[in-house]
Amino acid sequence: MECIILDKSIDYDGSQISSLWAYNLADVKADSIIAFRGACDVKIEHMIDLEDKKQGDIIFSEDMLHFIIEHFDSTDLKLVYARQRLFTAITSEVLLFRYPLIERMGDDLFIKGKKLTVSIASTSAVSQKIHLGINVVHDHYGSLNEMGITGDEVDKVLHEIANSYHNEINDIEKDLRKSRPLDVI
Amino acid sequence: MECIILDKSIDYDGSQISSLWAYNLADVKADSIIAFRGACDVKIEHMIDLEDKKQGDIIFSEDMLHFIIEHFDSTDLKLVYARQRLFTAITSEVLLFRYPLIERMGDDLFIKGKKLTVSIASTSAVSQKIHLGINVVHDHYGSLNEMGITGDEVDKVLHEIANSYHNEINDIEKDLRKSRPLDVI
Amino acid sequence: MECIILDKSIDYDGSQISSLWAYNLADVKADSIIAFRGACDVKIEHMIDLEDKKQGDIIFSEDMLHFIIEHFDSTDLKLVYARQRLFTAITSEVLLFRYPLIERMGDDLFIKGKKLTVSIASTSAVSQKIHLGINVVHDHYGSLNEMGITGDEVDKVLHEIANSYHNEINDIEKDLRKSRPLDVI
Amino acid sequence: MECIILDKSIDYDGSQISSLWAYNLADVKADSIIAFRGACDVKIEHMIDLEDKKQGDIIFSEDMLHFIIEHFDSTDLKLVYARQRLFTAITSEVLLFRYPLIERMGDDLFIKGKKLTVSIASTSAVSQKIHLGINVVHDHYGSLNEMGITGDEVDKVLHEIANSYHNEINDIEKDLRKSRPLDVI
Amino acid sequence: MECIILDKSIDYDGSQISSLWAYNLADVKADSIIAFRGACDVKIEHMIDLEDKKQGDIIFSEDMLHFIIEHFDSTDLKLVYARQRLFTAITSEVLLFRYPLIERMGDDLFIKGKKLTVSIASTSAVSQKIHLGINVVHDHYGSLNEMGITGDEVDKVLHEIANSYHNEINDIEKDLRKSRPLDVI
Amino acid sequence: MECIILDKSIDYDGSQISSLWAYNLADVKADSIIAFRGACDVKIEHMIDLEDKKQGDIIFSEDMLHFIIEHFDSTDLKLVYARQRLFTAITSEVLLFRYPLIERMGDDLFIKGKKLTVSIASTSAVSQKIHLGINVVHDHYGSLNEMGITGDEVDKVLHEIANSYHNEINDIEKDLRKSRPLDVI
Repeated sequence: MECIILDKSIDYDGSQISSLWAYNLADVKADSIIAFRGACDVKIEHMIDLEDKKQGDIIFSEDMLHFIIEHFDSTDLKLVYARQRLFTAITSEVLLFRYPLIERMGDDLFIKGKKLTVSIASTSAVSQKIHLGINVVHDHYGSLNEMGITGDEVDKVLHEIANSYHNEINDIEKDLRKSRPLDVI
Repeated sequence: MECIILDKSIDYDGSQISSLWAYNLADVKADSIIAFRGACDVKIEHMIDLEDKKQGDIIFSEDMLHFIIEHFDSTDLKLVYARQRLFTAITSEVLLFRYPLIERMGDDLFIKGKKLTVSIASTSAVSQKIHLGINVVHDHYGSLNEMGITGDEVDKVLHEIANSYHNEINDIEKDLRKSRPLDVI
Repeated sequence: MECIILDKSIDYDGSQISSLWAYNLADVKADSIIAFRGACDVKIEHMIDLEDKKQGDIIFSEDMLHFIIEHFDSTDLKLVYARQRLFTAITSEVLLFRYPLIERMGDDLFIKGKKLTVSIASTSAVSQKIHLGINVVHDHYGSLNEMGITGDEVDKVLHEIANSYHNEINDIEKDLRKSRPLDVI
Repeated sequence: MECIILDKSIDYDGSQISSLWAYNLADVKADSIIAFRGACDVKIEHMIDLEDKKQGDIIFSEDMLHFIIEHFDSTDLKLVYARQRLFTAITSEVLLFRYPLIERMGDDLFIKGKKLTVSIASTSAVSQKIHLGINVVHDHYGSLNEMGITGDEVDKVLHEIANSYHNEINDIEKDLRKSRPLDVI
Repeated sequence: MECIILDKSIDYDGSQISSLWAYNLADVKADSIIAFRGACDVKIEHMIDLEDKKQGDIIFSEDMLHFIIEHFDSTDLKLVYARQRLFTAITSEVLLFRYPLIERMGDDLFIKGKKLTVSIASTSAVSQKIHLGINVVHDHYGSLNEMGITGDEVDKVLHEIANSYHNEINDIEKDLRKSRPLDVI
Repeated sequence: MECIILDKSIDYDGSQISSLWAYNLADVKADSIIAFRGACDVKIEHMIDLEDKKQGDIIFSEDMLHFIIEHFDSTDLKLVYARQRLFTAITSEVLLFRYPLIERMGDDLFIKGKKLTVSIASTSAVSQKIHLGINVVHDHYGSLNEMGITGDEVDKVLHEIANSYHNEINDIEKDLRKSRPLDVI
């Protein structure tokens, strides 16, 4: 798995959730997590979650940390959703060291009852993908700034979250190669 | 998915990780999480992790909270390991409300640098299973008592962790049924 | 699995076989069978069976019972086709109590050598779906009316078929959770 | 898929449900249905259904028709159980032409409220298997003789059921190769 | 699996890599390898390999042998790529009898350092497909003519390669049905 | 994937085909190919191929090159058999540079009509494995020595074959991450 943290800013418009975006962007020929900073304004045609689409949800933020994960090892919906929840939990763990009052509910993080993140996961015929975005600043929703995470710390958080998922997946791949099958009653 | 919390104490000897243990114990014909309290003394022939076996690890505790998870929806090793890590993160989240200094590393939880838990995951030809045990008391390792979790609180923790996983899985099953497939670049 | 029987009439034009139709229609976040009554006129762009498309088959009926099944547990073509055949057999079993001369050939039912039903099954990247339609009246093909099934009985048949599949799937899910793996010679 | 009807009698003791039995018996290197006649007396160590094992069920019959199905195309439990139900429905369809009062409940057939059949399905790491046995004569349970199926007709039933499943599977394999993927809402 | 060698010439424009092309062309309802001769000029909208697309690669040849393989037994990317490499190796083996200096590198064959073939593999939601094309003549790239394979020999090569893959797959399907599962340390 | 070439000699008795042997031997927590030299004498209880077992085949050689491959990414029988054939083809390609008259038939290599190799592939619930052995010397069967491959060349062949498979798998993993899904007719 490759872990790539982009220096340049990219605005997330929903096209980045498409399969093979990483290859197109940076010739990545591996499972990957790509992290970057930028605004968020998801076009209706790129909305994956039909609940958002139905409710005409506006997914908009001026400044966010974005994480785009792609796995080609399976197209199992259950696996990508388990990974999405695990990634959300990892994100929570990284932030908890800085701000102890985060609550995870499914694929969302909250502070003071306000939503801090947006996230989606799905599959195509060739890969599974996850997007998670964290508000850096926001008028109505929760944000890193509100948690006191500003300046260089924002960039550190970007690195830490991406690296933690990268390490977690590598660790899982090792662990599952040293366990014998279960007995049966 | 069924969530069953046992009143009676059961000592974990490693046979409980076998496939179909839940059916044998309680006629459970569903995916399940079964939670109970008891000692832990894993016999060498029930050790699933070859690293433990090789190192002659003693997996022993006088008093633990045990969680046994069984899914029959797939026998994919990657899925059961993602679920194991997610379950460990959920356990951490429940405990953090009571004791803010827990650290998760893979499938282990630590307090003050001491291991608080044991865990294993694997598959047979018919199901995938996870075991996680948390020390209630322990002389050398971390324990709930050391975290100030004693008396009725121990039982509450048992319920909360089991219910949280149960809810998480139900929530995932709903979420993955409202997302359209990914576009492709 | 949810079993939903719609009161209002819906005309089947082939768009209902699309993945996530059930969520779009009724916020269903579960595997589902949705049963309703209405005309049938499948537009060429919604034809899934290329044999029909090639032959320029007109799939048209003024009044039909429709069943739309969606499973998200796998996207295996073999599984959805086995389920389609099983569903056709279940439909046959329900009708046999009222009219003993039905013949099933694959995914079709016949009376007096006349086709009574239309059916298709396929998958997308996120779900598997089955459609089965039964003529209530028809000039050229077989129909429920011709079998003496009219008035309230038509509605009863709609309910019985949907409920039978619902029960069968629930029963399967229980049964597969109490069988140990096979031995090997 | 091969369809083999054995002339010689074989007593079913449960060892025939093991993976690779068909290869061992007759050098079959294909998916297969093997049909034969013989007594049935399942040894406890060959019981696959833990419910039977728990209840100390005696699975005994002096004279039965047996069908042993093996597929190597997947080890998915859901697929083998869908196929088992489909096979039971096919068996019912063949018998209905001779005796119109058969009822299927899951993987069991009944006449006059009496059980006519036994069946089990499961997987190993290499194949999926189904056994179905139909009483030819029986003191307490339903039987073909009781349905008026005797003499040469018993043998015809053996052939018809085996051939019907064989044809159904071949037909499914053809059908799934002419359907385009689903659209998505 | 069906092996079809077409008498008539077909120009490969990339549309033939689409799922269900074999059914559309020749009502094939089986896994298949279809071999034919014709020019090659892949339109940009049919390019599957994003590396080619990115580099604006021209995939053009006046005269090629084409092989189109379709399997419906799984949509696993790893399986179709293993099969593509195996097919390329088989192609190499057939040509080696006539010209001993062929080198295979992944999915490409080379003579005298010049590329002799083009190949791609991918999946849709319903099938997996492989295309391999071999230059019969070419000004810049390697070609059969350059290897001294001309006239009737070209047609023989077309038949031999198609038949070899056909036999290999049939042989694999037999072999995997006589091996017991692995033991575990 | 790890590629390990052992200096010390190991006699292959069939136990090395067991899942997790690589971990047990050398703490390998990755997919792997392990190459070594040693005698071959497969005990009957370790025979995976029932055809060998049935025929009472003696699998014996005084001196062989052995390759043990283990993949944990899937337990699909079709995938491990495609990989086995690909590996056999790779082995053939390496040897062809030294001796141009090798013939591959399925998973066997032949020189002058004499069998040069033994091979088996299968799966457990946790991994898929392949063994291929090549005679270095042999009285009745083909051998490297007979091909003029002796001394240091034998060791070079050991390295080349192992490295070639290692590179092939790495290359496949890259290639499948840059192809978009297929269109459909």
